Formats: sequence, structure tokens, C-alpha cells
Amino acid sequence: MHVDLPESELRTYLGSGREPADFDEFWAGTLAEARSVPVDATMTATATPIVTLDVYDVAFRGFGGQIVRAWLRVPAGADRPLPTIVQLHGYGRGRGDAVENLLWASAGYAHLELDTRGQAWSGSRGATGDEAGSGPHVPGFLTRGIESAEEYYYRRLITDAVRLTDAARELPLVDGDRLLVTGISQGGGLALAVAGLVPGLAGVVARVPFLCDFPRATVITDARPYREIAEYLAHYRDRTEAVLDTLSYFDGVNFARRGTAPLRVTVALMDAVCPPSTVFAAYNNSPAPKSITVWPYNGHEGGGVDDDMLALDAFAEMVG
Amino acid sequence: MHVDLPESELRTYLGSGREPADFDEFWAGTLAEARSVPVDATMTATATPIVTLDVYDVAFRGFGGQIVRAWLRVPAGADRPLPTIVQLHGYGRGRGDAVENLLWASAGYAHLELDTRGQAWSGSRGATGDEAGSGPHVPGFLTRGIESAEEYYYRRLITDAVRLTDAARELPLVDGDRLLVTGISQGGGLALAVAGLVPGLAGVVARVPFLCDFPRATVITDARPYREIAEYLAHYRDRTEAVLDTLSYFDGVNFARRGTAPLRVTVALMDAVCPPSTVFAAYNNSPAPKSITVWPYNGHEGGGVDDDMLALDAFAEMVG
Amino acid sequence: MHVDLPESELRTYLGSGREPADFDEFWAGTLAEARSVPVDATMTATATPIVTLDVYDVAFRGFGGQIVRAWLRVPAGADRPLPTIVQLHGYGRGRGDAVENLLWASAGYAHLELDTRGQAWSGSRGATGDEAGSGPHVPGFLTRGIESAEEYYYRRLITDAVRLTDAARELPLVDGDRLLVTGISQGGGLALAVAGLVPGLAGVVARVPFLCDFPRATVITDARPYREIAEYLAHYRDRTEAVLDTLSYFDGVNFARRGTAPLRVTVALMDAVCPPSTVFAAYNNSPAPKSITVWPYNGHEGGGVDDDMLALDAFAEMVG
Amino acid sequence: MHVDLPESELRTYLGSGREPADFDEFWAGTLAEARSVPVDATMTATATPIVTLDVYDVAFRGFGGQIVRAWLRVPAGADRPLPTIVQLHGYGRGRGDAVENLLWASAGYAHLELDTRGQAWSGSRGATGDEAGSGPHVPGFLTRGIESAEEYYYRRLITDAVRLTDAARELPLVDGDRLLVTGISQGGGLALAVAGLVPGLAGVVARVPFLCDFPRATVITDARPYREIAEYLAHYRDRTEAVLDTLSYFDGVNFARRGTAPLRVTVALMDAVCPPSTVFAAYNNSPAPKSITVWPYNGHEGGGVDDDMLALDAFAEMVG
Amino acid sequence: MHVDLPESELRTYLGSGREPADFDEFWAGTLAEARSVPVDATMTATATPIVTLDVYDVAFRGFGGQIVRAWLRVPAGADRPLPTIVQLHGYGRGRGDAVENLLWASAGYAHLELDTRGQAWSGSRGATGDEAGSGPHVPGFLTRGIESAEEYYYRRLITDAVRLTDAARELPLVDGDRLLVTGISQGGGLALAVAGLVPGLAGVVARVPFLCDFPRATVITDARPYREIAEYLAHYRDRTEAVLDTLSYFDGVNFARRGTAPLRVTVALMDAVCPPSTVFAAYNNSPAPKSITVWPYNGHEGGGVDDDMLALDAFAEMVG
Amino acid sequence: MHVDLPESELRTYLGSGREPADFDEFWAGTLAEARSVPVDATMTATATPIVTLDVYDVAFRGFGGQIVRAWLRVPAGADRPLPTIVQLHGYGRGRGDAVENLLWASAGYAHLELDTRGQAWSGSRGATGDEAGSGPHVPGFLTRGIESAEEYYYRRLITDAVRLTDAARELPLVDGDRLLVTGISQGGGLALAVAGLVPGLAGVVARVPFLCDFPRATVITDARPYREIAEYLAHYRDRTEAVLDTLSYFDGVNFARRGTAPLRVTVALMDAVCPPSTVFAAYNNSPAPKSITVWPYNGHEGGGVDDDMLALDAFAEMVG
Repeated sequence: MHVDLPESELRTYLGSGREPADFDEFWAGTLAEARSVPVDATMTATATPIVTLDVYDVAFRGFGGQIVRAWLRVPAGADRPLPTIVQLHGYGRGRGDAVENLLWASAGYAHLELDTRGQAWSGSRGATGDEAGSGPHVPGFLTRGIESAEEYYYRRLITDAVRLTDAARELPLVDGDRLLVTGISQGGGLALAVAGLVPGLAGVVARVPFLCDFPRATVITDARPYREIAEYLAHYRDRTEAVLDTLSYFDGVNFARRGTAPLRVTVALMDAVCPPSTVFAAYNNSPAPKSITVWPYNGHEGGGVDDDMLALDAFAEMVG
Repeated sequence: MHVDLPESELRTYLGSGREPADFDEFWAGTLAEARSVPVDATMTATATPIVTLDVYDVAFRGFGGQIVRAWLRVPAGADRPLPTIVQLHGYGRGRGDAVENLLWASAGYAHLELDTRGQAWSGSRGATGDEAGSGPHVPGFLTRGIESAEEYYYRRLITDAVRLTDAARELPLVDGDRLLVTGISQGGGLALAVAGLVPGLAGVVARVPFLCDFPRATVITDARPYREIAEYLAHYRDRTEAVLDTLSYFDGVNFARRGTAPLRVTVALMDAVCPPSTVFAAYNNSPAPKSITVWPYNGHEGGGVDDDMLALDAFAEMVG
Repeated sequence: MHVDLPESELRTYLGSGREPADFDEFWAGTLAEARSVPVDATMTATATPIVTLDVYDVAFRGFGGQIVRAWLRVPAGADRPLPTIVQLHGYGRGRGDAVENLLWASAGYAHLELDTRGQAWSGSRGATGDEAGSGPHVPGFLTRGIESAEEYYYRRLITDAVRLTDAARELPLVDGDRLLVTGISQGGGLALAVAGLVPGLAGVVARVPFLCDFPRATVITDARPYREIAEYLAHYRDRTEAVLDTLSYFDGVNFARRGTAPLRVTVALMDAVCPPSTVFAAYNNSPAPKSITVWPYNGHEGGGVDDDMLALDAFAEMVG
Repeated sequence: MHVDLPESELRTYLGSGREPADFDEFWAGTLAEARSVPVDATMTATATPIVTLDVYDVAFRGFGGQIVRAWLRVPAGADRPLPTIVQLHGYGRGRGDAVENLLWASAGYAHLELDTRGQAWSGSRGATGDEAGSGPHVPGFLTRGIESAEEYYYRRLITDAVRLTDAARELPLVDGDRLLVTGISQGGGLALAVAGLVPGLAGVVARVPFLCDFPRATVITDARPYREIAEYLAHYRDRTEAVLDTLSYFDGVNFARRGTAPLRVTVALMDAVCPPSTVFAAYNNSPAPKSITVWPYNGHEGGGVDDDMLALDAFAEMVG
Repeated sequence: MHVDLPESELRTYLGSGREPADFDEFWAGTLAEARSVPVDATMTATATPIVTLDVYDVAFRGFGGQIVRAWLRVPAGADRPLPTIVQLHGYGRGRGDAVENLLWASAGYAHLELDTRGQAWSGSRGATGDEAGSGPHVPGFLTRGIESAEEYYYRRLITDAVRLTDAARELPLVDGDRLLVTGISQGGGLALAVAGLVPGLAGVVARVPFLCDFPRATVITDARPYREIAEYLAHYRDRTEAVLDTLSYFDGVNFARRGTAPLRVTVALMDAVCPPSTVFAAYNNSPAPKSITVWPYNGHEGGGVDDDMLALDAFAEMVG
Repeated sequence: MHVDLPESELRTYLGSGREPADFDEFWAGTLAEARSVPVDATMTATATPIVTLDVYDVAFRGFGGQIVRAWLRVPAGADRPLPTIVQLHGYGRGRGDAVENLLWASAGYAHLELDTRGQAWSGSRGATGDEAGSGPHVPGFLTRGIESAEEYYYRRLITDAVRLTDAARELPLVDGDRLLVTGISQGGGLALAVAGLVPGLAGVVARVPFLCDFPRATVITDARPYREIAEYLAHYRDRTEAVLDTLSYFDGVNFARRGTAPLRVTVALMDAVCPPSTVFAAYNNSPAPKSITVWPYNGHEGGGVDDDMLALDAFAEMVG
């Protein structure tokens, strides 16, 4: 069933509007600090049974200088810079195994797939831990370090994603002028963040993005993972304002306001995990050239393979 | 949690032992009738954004002469017969879209993917209906036509699968002497069936196979889809013997007794959908060169990407 | 809890308003084709332990000339035409057994109970299959043949129901001028359809009717069976308009606009299976003499035995 | 799925064997006290739309002299004593409405249907409260008054059932020498109790009977209503022995040991509400001429209409 | 998720407005009748392992003269009248054990804890039954005796609560001029009732109170225990008006209109058990000095230990 | 329902028997390293509304020298060493608030309550984070750092618990010769660990202890939190042996073999969270003076307030 506002109201909904005054300063400082360490991007050929693609194990220095991994897949024998899809993953997923997720490279792109620090317990595996500790929190990552913007988990993960674009530009098979960023759910939210922080991207495809409009998201759905935040605040009742402040530094609505690369968004009207108003809040605030696809009968699975095809169309146009 | 017998008992469990006297006659007649119509295999190149593979839309005549579809994927530019993986799908899935399921062909095989008549409502789409009607039945396919072996849905579907191997041997990119058959769940059960009916296969990989040891399967789990049968018999109480008779013509245990191609099976000890005893009942009865992988902490997802890798290893050995 | 609009808005809600231009032509053609085959109504006395009623096994030719069954029950020894209740069944139910459903005949009516082709897996048994095949569809009947109005399952079932009224008028114990049509849920939706297609009925009692206002029904509830359609469209995203077009030929709102026999409807405000707005959409469009009973604290069970009593009152008045 | 011992073990299982030394004394005293008040059976014709049956509102004095209600239905115009079915109801059900439950009388029997004191919140309505209070207890009736055998709810309800047989013998349309007792679930357990307490019955049909082998029933299932007892003991841990002592006066196993009228039992192997071992414990202890029907694929719905037909066959034989 | 109106609408919502004309007369009569029996308050020292508090087993005559129990806890050695907290319990809870619930007395108050007649099956135990019987009802206490205001369970329980304040004023360790009344959920509803019926209280703290605005409560949530009423009316459809009439004598909204002692209320916006509008309906109608704490991220657990601290602050101020 | 072996088998079950050869060495090294940092125990009086107890905020250096917090509560005005209860908490709980958990100190003991590093999201709050990072893991703490015994979360938490006993012996209000250790669930498992690692304890009360017999626990229940491990291994299939090796250093069975202080255990036969065989495995291996209480009708709530009373009895005897 439809889980949110009527579509006509979604089309104009602008979100809860919480943006900290020092948002840009916070991120400039965070990235400057991360970039004070060389990104040290390396790629190592990985043996697989795949004959049509070459797969490389990529390592680079992410937040805090920690070594973070990624996969790079290219059509077999590729030896020149290619337009490149940077993929960020959904909640619970890591970069997976070398033999998985073959579509983007099979379509002729270089495909960079970020490992999600500390996650990777569901859907796909990973090889990157999270070196940071945390105060008491709800199981999961939504409230890890939520006591301050500096300590918040997503500060580290978003920085990793930005640093992957830095690393990409050092890799010989990547055409740094034709970087595309995409992801589903958490990956879509991260894509919006990268688009708000990294200039010069060729385009962004954010599918059913998560991490948007936290003040509304946390009160209009009981579905995980937004519910982790509600559970935290149900317990630590006196921290509501502090938590919403922390979250405002990581809200996709605020990143969307800053991104200028061409943007493609998809949203599903039966999606209780990333309710459509939270997605529209980000989309409606974007100043970029943009379009949105609305799936009326889908939940959080969104457009699935149809979204894959739409993304491939969009990518072709963005780098064409 | 473990859902079935201790592993030591699984290793020797032989099943409920219901096999009709005319089992071979039934299938010989069924296949002869199907083969009285030419298989009429055709393949049509399909435009996709994939550059590393060529994809063909395959059509052939399955049960009752009905046109059934499949995909054929090969490494781009392949123009000679390749060792070929015939893939059969799990319950609810069709052949999917042209851009999905790229692993097998990316590993250098010709990959033939059967559309599952009438199914395709979950996980992947399809383009092949089922022309046959049915008496009253529980929603789903497990009791469609269960009033007789002749009318049972799986008579049609298994025949389609056999006919796909016939069709394969007519296709110029398929090496008919190096046919491999594989599938997960329902696809694994179908693989066992094809292996029991088609001589000369190079090998079979059946992962967490469904459709095995019905007399036990229908009373030791509440999970769908076996439960469809229990629901039918809860309603039509006087047909228990007749239904078990019908099912005995389609039981993977009876097919496994007949297949002689090298066999690789995987099974999961927390799998309530295809409980491990039902899988072992088929495996333990097989006279083929065989091995089984037991996943102690998995449910019906089985070995996932680990099973993919095991299958690629097995395929390499089978056609090596 | 109340699951839909406030009652005051329900009272004026008129539905989503999708009606095909050739609605009447479609049904005129469908019925003409069905009636091109003689209805061949037969009735055979059935031995039962019941002494107060006579029960007859009725057969007639429904859609496609297929033989469809029904029960006829009359007070024991009845030998003259009686006012007759034609009962259509809820989703999943068949005509049941001869000894079930004794109320209407015990109240002095001839009682004709249609077997529901292919259904009968829940609540009551049946003896009538559905000879037609189908493209890929979600388990159940809501998306069977949904690729076109011609192939849709409900075209066959509604035609069966109309043909039962034709058959009724041939049976010696039925007074064709005093035909009453009734049903619950799917049976209520079928009753509205029959009322829109068959002139000269004495009255109609549709209880918590299903099959009404599909465009809204499929987006305001997650409950089965409407959800089957949403699941189909979640998968086959490009067919949304085509599916809604197909459904518009079978929408109770459109039938209700055409029926002129006295109409009695019941509706329940906590009914998530057949949400009250969908029922009111049909009711509010009806030009017939009509009344509606609203049950504020009921779900899809509706008025139960209270609805039985209301129906008996209504029937008495309609044929009085 | 099968929820209990293998059928071979069920066939010999004799129960937990807890029987108080003064069981017979307890019940002799209870019934003597109840019978010290005249039963005062009355029957009042009730107007209904039913023409094939006459329905009477019956009142009599049950436990504590409280007025308890029942329905009596007979074929219309009956004016002589008929073989009579005394029906006892399942948990949550009352005698229902006058127009419900027409089968037994339609088959030519007088049909007496006990109202269940205080219950009647689910499935059918009632008109008889329970005048007794209770100590703290779990919602429902299983622990009401469980602090002692004297105060236990089922002492009152079983006495009502016995008193209904006393009342029956005073009614002019009842043939007191051809009394049959039957019920489903709680009704089946009550039927076993009546059979153990009332001599001279023509026969008993107990379907999926409840209230048997409490010591085992309360630890092998989580299903309600047995679970009410487990919940009580989870809370009042020090009363376990006292509660099991109380229950032993009401255990169907102990009643079954005493009943000598011909006995027909049905049991379902997937019944988690009344697990089959508890039913077999009662059945296996019965010294009466007996038979049991085992439904392998049913849950607590048991044999449904098939059990109705079996019961009618049994009744015919018992009074034949 | 938020389960009710937006907070801005909650702030002015006044409830469904059903108040019987003889509300005051009904309660005056009820209390007069109860007070026609002496309250007979007794307190007996109870041995416990607690050394910092003295615990007394209190007995008094509640509704119908029935003996009702309570605990009295005071700081060890207390021998003079203390400001006293009268605590009423949530649904399913009794007064518990002597060693539980130590906070209020440890904070220096006399603490009187009412046993809830007949309840005490969940969370804490009790020692007080309910001597009254009931007509047919849904398991639980919400529909026990609902056939009339005179017979309704809450008439007895509210009277017990009022009588406990009478009893309190007879106890030597209680300062009758500094009586505080508090409770959570049902206990909060009872506190509102006591505040509306007993003059001269020092203050009231009602946390997430239950038993408010029944006409709305029963249609906007499916959660128990309000749902018991909806289930009753789903069954006994003709009694809707009568039931709502009965409930209007027990509605916290009507009590809140009458209470004049300082009032502190807490409410949670994710509380589906006691939806916030029903709480605000009571609060907004109160003429007392009052304040309300809104917990945005809590369900029915409300403010938990934060509410404890708020209550201690409020108590200190109320008796300060 | 009973969820494990029959009680007679539980009485002799000895567990899966996995103990690493260097178990003692591992723990000796771990504790030596921890003790190389002074424990730095401090206590600071905390203002609360409680008048009968004094509450102190305790800090000390736990694993890795990290500052860990605890509460100390004593009867108001206590100024000499008291027998002391060290309480360890269940999964998800922190030390809670100062005004909670008053029983042990109200009974005259000094009561030390460990904060659980990083936890405290459910049931009670905390103030102690976990400074360590982790590789990819399932949300929760059971697989955090599971890649090696050195990195495993429970190495840190158990060390904290041991260090709290070290700290206790430095506090002036604690009698170091009369230390009692207790806990429920995770707290019970930690109590067994402390008892196996710390000599000279006066006694241990472990209630429904968690963290015992991992090889069996992870395959006989689907309940969290053991299920976290199964989910991890379902994903990281190749790490099964390594994970079971890691867990063997933390298994309560191995600790129980080493503890010699008097031991009291409670266990519940319907406990699917900590299945009774896993508890008995620890208990049966203990060489200490011991007794066990079996609750036949309880789940993981165990004996609740009855266990509190048993514990107080046991404590009195242990320090008497």
C-alpha cells in the first residue's frame, strides 16, 4: 500500500529543513583532514573464473588513514581509461566477492565498488572493518558514534566514499573526467553525499536513497534501519535535539542542495524503508539537471532490473 | 537452528521409498509424445547494453508442443560450440531479463536459461505461460493438475527441461557432448529430473534441491512451497494416497536413482524449505560419481556465492 | 481500527472512475459468445443424510462451453418453482459439500450455489476446474490472464455466474421471475457483476463485496487478495496501465452503475481486505433502489449471521 | 508439519497418568450437589425464518442452580421423542444464533446445543454468563478458579453439560435412551467428560478433543489455549503441583477411563492446539467399543465436513 | 512511528464528548453504597530481606465489601504520618511481591500499592480475586460486565481505588492531607478516575493513561487492550450504543473534567496502546493546574525512568 | 513449550567439549596485561532522591586501560565494609540510572553494578563505550571482533568484569572477603567467567546464563542473540572452525570447570534464548559446591522475583 503523502504533495515536499550553519565548514575540515594523508591507491589483479572481465583488488586510505578496499572490474584486456561507475552499497552489504555484480563492467564501464567499513553481514561480504569504537548504541550503524558529528559513523563512511573518487582518479584504467556515482538505498544516500562534496562528477544515479530527511524519516516509519535512531531516542530521551543536530550534518537533503552534477533518482510509493517523502525532500531541493522515476507498486526493492536499465541509459547519456 | 535429523543419520537416510512400478514407462511415454513434435529450436540475437556477452532469445517446443523460451548467453563473438550450462530456475522465477545472471557466460560457458512456464512472479520475470488448465488447487504450482500424473504441472515443466537439452543440441554455439545441468531449489530438483531422463550429460550440480521425498517433505515442514501440498490434502482428505501416487512420478529420489552423470549436491542444515533429509534421500540413492557439500549454518539460501564457486570448479572438472 | 476514509467521506466517494468506452460491447460480445452454446442445465438428485432438504447436483455449460457445477437445495419434497437464491462464493471457496450451507433452503428458498472454477482450496471444496491456461502470474486468480481482458480469469468466472442464472431459468424448481443473487466478498463482487449484466432480477444482496475500484484498492491495502495485483505490478512494472485497463472491464463500480434490481450492500469499517471506500464506490454509483449497512467494528467477516438475517429480511421483501 | 510423536508411538501412548484418588468421589459429590436443585428444563418455541426445522430456546439449572441456556432444533412438526444429539462447543463459542448450525436437525435428529457459560466471544454468540468470580488468572477460562478443584471453571461447565443430559431426558421431543454426545475441541473434551459421568449414553463422538493429558499438553505446545496454563505457572511458579492436581480432576484421560458408551474419536497429526498424543492418551485408555480416525495433513480444524459425515454415520449406527 | 494526529492538533483535541447526564449521580451512588460498609483498613508487618524499608500487608473493604489487598512500604522505622503515594497498576499487573517496586518508599514516601482485583497475570502477581461473575465476554477485563454500567468491571476497580484512599486516611503512617495518586497506563486511567472522585488530593501523576476517550480509542488502534472492546462489538454488533453508553461512565475524559488537584500527565507519540489523542482528550479537558510531557520517540513504555524522575520532582513540589 | 532435551538427559549432559589447550594461558596473559595498568578505582557520591541508600558513581580502568563505570549502592550512612554483590548485566543493558535496581542494597549489601561497554540500548542505559573497532560483523556484540580471540568483544567485557572485582577490593565500603557475583543471562555467563578467573569469591549466582556451550547453542535455537553467530557463519561460511575456536575461549562451560566458589544456577525449560542444555552443560561441569533450580514453565525470564528471593537466600548463606 502507499505509505506516505499523495504523489501530488510529494512533488513539492521540501523536507524538515534542518541544516547546521557550519555544514560546509564541517565537511571541508573533514575532507581536508582525510586528504592530509596520501590516498595510496593500489590495484592488484585478482584471479577469478571470469574470462570476460578483469578484476582488481583496490586498496586506498579512507577516513583516519585507515586502509579501505574496493573492487575494480573492467572488460577483459582494457588498458586505457574508461568512463567509471563508482558504486556504493546498501545497508549491511560489503563489496561482495570478485565474481559478483558483473553488470556494470559487462556494459563496458570501469566499475569501482566500495567496501562498507564494518558492515557486510547481509547480502554480500566485505573485507574492511571500522577501526573506531563507539559509545552505547543500538545494534547496527545508525547510532554508532551518534553522540557527536565528529564521532558519527557516517562521517567515516562518507569520507571513504569521497576518498574513493580521489583514488579513482589515480587509477590508470579510470577516466577521472567521466566519473559516475550510483547506489541503492544507503548507497543512494552516499551517492547524494558524494555528489554534494565532490565537484566535477559526470552524473549521479541515486536509487530509493536512504539517509534523507532524518527528522521526518525517524517518525513516519517503523522499518529498520531508520528505526535504530528512534530506538536510541526512545532510550536516551534527553538527547533528541543533540541527535537531530548530529544527523543534520549527514542528511541527504543538505547534500542534495549542493550537488550540481546531473541527477537521476528513483523512488517507490510503497517503500516503508525509505519513505517517498524523504526521497522527494532530497530530490526537490536539488539544483542539478534532474529527473525522477516513481514506481507506484514497489516497496524498497524499487525498480530492480528496470532501474538497472534506466541507470545504464542515464550513464550513457551522462558520459556520451 | 538445525531443522532435521542429526547429520550422521542424514548420511544414511534413504527416503520414504515410494516408486511406481511404471515410472520408467510413464516417462518414456511422456518424452516420446513430446518428441513427436520437432523441437524447432531458434535463436535470435537480442540487443542489450552488455558488450562482453552476446545474448540470444531462444524458442523451442516444449510439452504439448507449446513454445517455450530461454536465454542463451555466450562470450561476445563466440562462434563455435562451447561447453554449455543449462540452468533451471527456482520456484517463482522465470528466465529473467537479458541483462541478468551474467556469471556463467562470463566464465566462458554457453549458458542456457529455461523460462519456467506460468511462474515468474518473484525474483525474475518470464515470458512463457502454461497453456494447460487445472482442477481446483491451492494457489501456486505444487497442486496444479495433481489429480493425475498425466495432468500434473511438473510433467509439463520437466518435459520442457528435457526438451531444452534436445534444443541445446541443435544450437550451433552449444557443444552437445559437454552439457552441464544445474539449478537451485526447484531448479535443483529439475536438474535431478533431467539427469534421470537424459543420457550423456557431462555433469549435474543440484543446489538445495526441491521436489525430493515428498512423503516426508510434506509432513516435516510448514514452509512453502511443500506446504501447498499439505494444504491441499488438509482440504481434500480423501485424496492423500492418490496425491502421493501422483507425486511419486516426480520425486527427485526416483530420478536420482537413475542418473549416472557426475553429480554435485549442496544442502543446508537450517533449511526448512528443502529440509536436508529430503535432499540426502535423493543424494544417497544416486549411483553416480558424486559428492555433497553440507552447510551447517545456512537456511534455504544454501551456499550462495560459495556454491557458485563450487559449481564453477565442478563444471571445469566435468568438462575438463 | 478503521482502515479507510471517515464515514462521512465514504458516503460520497465515487471511485477512481476508470471505465472503458467499450465496456458494454465487451460484455455483450462475451455473453453472446457464451450463449451460442446451449446451457444444457441438468440436475441429478444427490443422496445425503439430510432429510429436510432435497439436494441436486447441477451441471451446465459456462464460459467456453465448459461444464460447470452447482448445488441446488430445496425444502424436501418441493415440486414447484420457488423463489431462488443464486449464491456466489468468496475467494478460495468452491460450492462445498452437499451437506453444507443449509440456511437458504431451510428458509424455504431454492438455493443455487455456483462452483468457482479452479478455486476451492480454502473453506469449501469444489468440483470444477478452469480449463484455461495463463501467462506468468502471481499465485492465485487475480492476475491469471491479466495480460488482456479477453484472457482474464474473471471474464470466465463472471460468465459462469451469468450462465447459472440462464441455467436457473431452465430448472423446474426455480421461479425465474424471482431470482435473487447474493454473495460475500468475491461472491458479493460477482453478485454486482451479475446484477449489471442480467436484467429482471428480483434483488441483489452484496456483502463486503470484493472486485471494486481496483485503482484505489490496489494501493490502499496490503491485504490479500488485492495485493496479488500489486505484487504483479511490482514485478512487471511496465504493465501498470495495461493491467488497470484490463481490470476496468471487471470493476464492480462499473457493474454497479448498470444494475437496476433492488440492491442491499453491507460494508465494514475495519475491513482491510475489501476497504470500505471501494465498497462505497460501487454502492454510491448504483442507480438502483438501495440501502447499505455499515458495521463499524468489523473486519472482513462483516456482519456474519447478522448479515444472514438482514439478507433473509431483504429477500422476503424483494420477492414478497 | 507433524507436531508430536510418530504415529506408531501415538498408538500406544497412555498419558502422564495423574489421577487423584478421590476423582470419583469428587464428581459424585459435585453432581449430587448440582442435582439437589431440580433441573427445571423449559423449552420455548422461537420464531425464525427457518421453515424446515422448529427451534426452541431451552433453559435449565446447571451448576450452582444457575440458569443455563441451550437450543433445541428438530425437524419441523416433530412431535415425538427423537434420537438426540447433545452438542458441546469449542473454546470461545456459545450456542450461537437460532438460525445457525442446522446440520444435525436437518439429518432428522433432535439437536441440543449447550451454551458455554461466560464464553461466546469468538465464532458464535451466547446468552449465558458465569456467575462465579475468580482469583487472579490469565485472560481466558483455563486458569479461572484454578486455585482449587472446587473453584475451577470446568467444574461448573462440565456440570452444566451433565445437567443438560438430565434436562434432555425431561424434554418431550428427546428420546432419553438414544442420547448421543458430541463436540469439537473443548466440545470434544466435554463429550469425554460427560461420557465418563453419565451412564446409558448411546454413543459419543469426540473430535480433536481438548482438555486431555494436561501434564504433557502444557509443555509440548505454545498454542493457546493450553498455553494459558503455562503462562499462569510461569508467573505463579510455586503453584505448579497444586495446579496439576486441580487439573487432574478435569483431565479427559481420566474421564475416558470411565466411559463405556461406544466412542468415536478423530485426531489430526498437525494439530498444535490439541496435540495428537494428548488425544491418543485419552483414546488409548478408553475401555469402550471405539475407533479413531487419524487425519495426517490437518491441524486443529481436524476433519471438518468429513468429520461431520463420519459423525452422521456413527450416530446412525449408534442409535440404529 | 507517530501513530496519531500531528502534535499541533493533539494540543487542542477535546475528545469524542460522550458524557452521560447522570454521570455524577452514578458515581455518587456507587461510592455511597461502597462506603456503607466500613473500610476496615488493617496493616500487618511483613517479613522481608529488605532492611531499609518496612513493608506492611494492607487489607481493606473495596467494592461490594470484598476484601482487597495492598502493600504499604515506608522507610524503615518510620513512625509518623508521611506524604503518601497511592499507586495503581497497569493492565495485567497486581500489587506484586513485597520486595518489588522499592523506589517510592526509598525516596522517603509512604507507598501504597493497590492490588488489581482478578488481574495479576503479567508483570507482577496479586492476591485479590474478583468475586463478581460476568456475561459472555472477550478474554480480559475490558468487556467483563459490559452489559451495564452497574455490572462493569471497572466500576468495581475504580471503587477499590477510591476506597484505598479512604483506607489510607485511616492508616497511622499516612498523612491524609498529602495524598498523591499515580499510575502508568491502566494505573494512569485509574489515577484520573480517583482524581475526579476524591476531593482533597495533593496531586496526580498519570503516565500514558489508559481508559480515555473510548469512542475514538476503540476505532484508531488494533492494539490490546482497547481491541478487546472492538472484538466484543465485532461479535455483538447490536450492542454498540449500549456498550459506548456503559463506557462513558468510566471514561477518563469525563473524570478529568472533574479533578481539580494538580495534574501531571505524560504521553508518547508512538504509543499505539494508548494513542496520544486519547490522552490529550483527557488532559485538554482538565480544569486543574496541569502540565504534560510529550515523548516523541516512545511507545507505550512512555518515559520509563525519566518519568519516574519527573514524578519524584512533581511529588516533591505537590507536597512541598 | 519445552525447547530442549528431556530433563533426565539435561541432568547428565556435559556439552560439546571444545576447550583450547591454551585456555588458561590465554586468560592469564589477558588479565596480566590488564592488571599492568593500575585499576584506579574511584567513587563519587551521586545526588539522588533516594533517602534510604547512598549511591556512588564508580570508575575504574578495565580492558586496555579504558575507563569503565559502575554504580555502588549501600544502605544510607554505611561507613564500613559490607558483603558485596557484584552484578553483571544482560545483553543490551548498561548499568542503568542511579535510582534503578534498588533491591540488593536495600537488603543490606553493598551493590556494585558494572556498566557494559558499548551496550545499553535496551532495558537500561549506560555511560561506557567500547573503544575498540571491529571487522565486518552482524549488528550486535556476539560477532564483534570474532576474527580472533584477541579481538573478540567478550575478551574486553570479561576483563572489565574481573577488573571490577579488583576495583571492589580497593573500595572502602566493600568487604573483599565477601564478594558475591551474580547476573542474569549475559550477566550469568559473565558471572561464570568471573568465577572461573577470580579466586576467593564467596559465591556465585548465575541465572539462565548465556554464553555457554556455543557449538550446540548456535544450532539448536533461532533466537537472538545466539543467532547472531549463526547469521555470521551463514555469510562467512569458511570461518566456521575459526569462529568456534574463538568462542571456545569464552565458553561458560570452560569457565565453569574452573570455578570453585559455591555456585547457584537457575534454568528454565521453555527458554529458547539460553536453551537449558547449554546451561546444564556449564553446571554439570562445575566442581564447585552447587545447586540448580529448574523452572519448568518459564522462558528466558526465568524465575524473576522468585530468583531474586532465592539469590538473597543464597547470598545470606554464602556470606553468613
